[in-house]
Amino acid sequence: MRKIISGNVLVAQGGGPTAVINQSLAGVVVESRKFPQIGHVYGALQGVQGIVNEKLIDLTETTEHNLEAVAQTPGAALLSTRDKPDKEYCGKILKVLWKHGVRYFFYIGGNDSAETCLIIKKQAAKARHKLRVVHIPKTIDNDLLVTDHCPGYGSAARFVALAFAGANLDNQALPGVYIGVVMGRDAGFLTAASCLARTYPDDGPHLIYLPERTFDEARFVADVKTVLARHKRCVVAVAEGIKDAKGNRIGADWEHVDKFGNPLLSGALVAKRLTDALERDKSIERIRADVFGYLQRSLPGCVSEVDRFEAREVAEKAVQYAIRHDLDGSVAIRRIGDYAVEYALKSLESVAKKTRHMEDEYIAASGTDVTEAFRAYVKPLAGPLPCIERIAAPAVPSKPQGRRAGGMRVR
Amino acid sequence: MRKIISGNVLVAQGGGPTAVINQSLAGVVVESRKFPQIGHVYGALQGVQGIVNEKLIDLTETTEHNLEAVAQTPGAALLSTRDKPDKEYCGKILKVLWKHGVRYFFYIGGNDSAETCLIIKKQAAKARHKLRVVHIPKTIDNDLLVTDHCPGYGSAARFVALAFAGANLDNQALPGVYIGVVMGRDAGFLTAASCLARTYPDDGPHLIYLPERTFDEARFVADVKTVLARHKRCVVAVAEGIKDAKGNRIGADWEHVDKFGNPLLSGALVAKRLTDALERDKSIERIRADVFGYLQRSLPGCVSEVDRFEAREVAEKAVQYAIRHDLDGSVAIRRIGDYAVEYALKSLESVAKKTRHMEDEYIAASGTDVTEAFRAYVKPLAGPLPCIERIAAPAVPSKPQGRRAGGMRVR
Repeated sequence: MRKIISGNVLVAQGGGPTAVINQSLAGVVVESRKFPQIGHVYGALQGVQGIVNEKLIDLTETTEHNLEAVAQTPGAALLSTRDKPDKEYCGKILKVLWKHGVRYFFYIGGNDSAETCLIIKKQAAKARHKLRVVHIPKTIDNDLLVTDHCPGYGSAARFVALAFAGANLDNQALPGVYIGVVMGRDAGFLTAASCLARTYPDDGPHLIYLPERTFDEARFVADVKTVLARHKRCVVAVAEGIKDAKGNRIGADWEHVDKFGNPLLSGALVAKRLTDALERDKSIERIRADVFGYLQRSLPGCVSEVDRFEAREVAEKAVQYAIRHDLDGSVAIRRIGDYAVEYALKSLESVAKKTRHMEDEYIAASGTDVTEAFRAYVKPLAGPLPCIERIAAPAVPSKPQGRRAGGMRVR
Repeated sequence: MRKIISGNVLVAQGGGPTAVINQSLAGVVVESRKFPQIGHVYGALQGVQGIVNEKLIDLTETTEHNLEAVAQTPGAALLSTRDKPDKEYCGKILKVLWKHGVRYFFYIGGNDSAETCLIIKKQAAKARHKLRVVHIPKTIDNDLLVTDHCPGYGSAARFVALAFAGANLDNQALPGVYIGVVMGRDAGFLTAASCLARTYPDDGPHLIYLPERTFDEARFVADVKTVLARHKRCVVAVAEGIKDAKGNRIGADWEHVDKFGNPLLSGALVAKRLTDALERDKSIERIRADVFGYLQRSLPGCVSEVDRFEAREVAEKAVQYAIRHDLDGSVAIRRIGDYAVEYALKSLESVAKKTRHMEDEYIAASGTDVTEAFRAYVKPLAGPLPCIERIAAPAVPSKPQGRRAGGMRVR
């Protein structure tokens, strides 16, 4: 007979919010409450910060309606934190978990959150605190190893695809150069999703710059001029994390440095530097750059169905792995068809602090586009996009001056 | 018996695209084709520029499916122009209309387009060219006189409301100061729509800065600090057209001037100047600004239902006024309930080149918020927003160190 281990559940959210992170929260709460051995389901306010400060809420009796409504709301309902706990910090977390009888800890976040899970798990084992720790993946950057893709990415990819579809239509109506700056420090997945904006052969983005490829300003200006010569307009997608040949980030903001003296990354600076480069070439007119900013991860109503389901399912599976199977780890998504998935539990070590980059097979040889393989990869994740159609009508032959066509007779 | 006047129809789109401008295009084409006296329905590519260059397409046989798919697509399907024709330019337009037997001209655009319609109408009358000219309103700025509101505004207002709802959730999860810069040179209607983002009493935007009120930097910094003291976070909505007490625009970009030497208006500059002002006050941390840019007028899938219907209906009515009633003018929307509308034809003179500003009754006495009257005005236009809900759960009492709650017994 299987041992039934009773105790409490704690769930927290970390890092930047996404459109579907609350689906994962609802998944943990709803699924955990099905197990009779679970006493209370707690939520930590502001991630790990809320744990050390003992700011917990009791979700045991939260109504299903409220949970489902929250699940549909973007942003982190439990609030979030940028804290990246070290061993000492994790020691404090563990004490609070112990005090509150927490037997199962679920942390929804990226690779930093997985690292936190790993440290806590190790310390719990050392302290003989019977604790199961499961990391539930979440990131719009899609930069976690082991999993095919991350919950949160599909909806952000959908936003980026829609944003560029709209920008492309705008650029067609009023031609010029349009630059859209997309989130992504080291991984280009989100910027690359802009490829889904293309319906017609001459649709933009015409150029896609990823952090995985070296950015060369002179080459960029030449690329834009080539596109302008061909289409008389140009739409550019660029990741905010692009670097030059020396490894310096184009968006490095030395006026704003963190406590270690490292420059912050500024999408606005990427926009300005690229715009300035084009303006120095006097032949290019009507240059416009937009930085998509927080809209990418928070716009309500911009959710991919697939992403929504999966964000829920990874949490359900996390609870089952921990409570039913008494296991630790990180939940991964495996793609098994076009399009279907299954879930697996991977070690925390395989995810913690590691960053996935776009695979070479996904980047075109030109370095300024993606491949068909990438398009096939991202398309089901972003879901079907709204209709984009051009008008179909023949040109009217021009008429010699003075001639008059058709009658304007008064009958 | 009524005179039946046969001839051709020409339709064009001008100025910045919107999410629903193609509904108006489809409305003109579908409605015009119902009249047997209409020979051809032409479209001008790139607005008035396409007319003088005789770049016309023949929409007479364009399929209904294509028209309906185009109607759902944002951006100007006939392409657009920033040209503002003078009398000479309008003379050229008139020659082309004459050559192609155009009896009815419909121009979808803002107050500049209405001005073009007015000049053309006057010149046609002088030249005894039997021409009916009807202006079909379109602008995300909502700055046309006579009409209750403008097609295009509702969908853009919806975008702004959603953008701030998302930004507010993000700001709640990871507190700091968030500034969202909204389009709007002289009229604050679009920025004001951010008020719809508020669901809970402490939701942002906490401060709304409109072009209708003088912007004072010191007052702004003080306002933000007051909000921070109260909510420990602050969301700000600001129109890119805000001006200081001397009438200088905060976003005036003197590095980029137009052919008359006037500075261009830069949302990025507004973002930078407001951010800089807050940073100079060392007490304020984690300041972030986003400029919504073109997304406001072009994001596919972000359409208000009311706006969609009305953009179609103003075009249908325009065709009826011109072809059935043989009248010129600009179509206006009159609100007759909560919520219902009817349409009326107003003189071109009443709309041409005039700018509507936000009425005083819509702006709060503080100058940094809108009134309930404005909220009631804008709410039906933006349509119902997706669910925004917070989690409802009681706080868990903190426990003294060492004490242990609940059992973690192995049964």
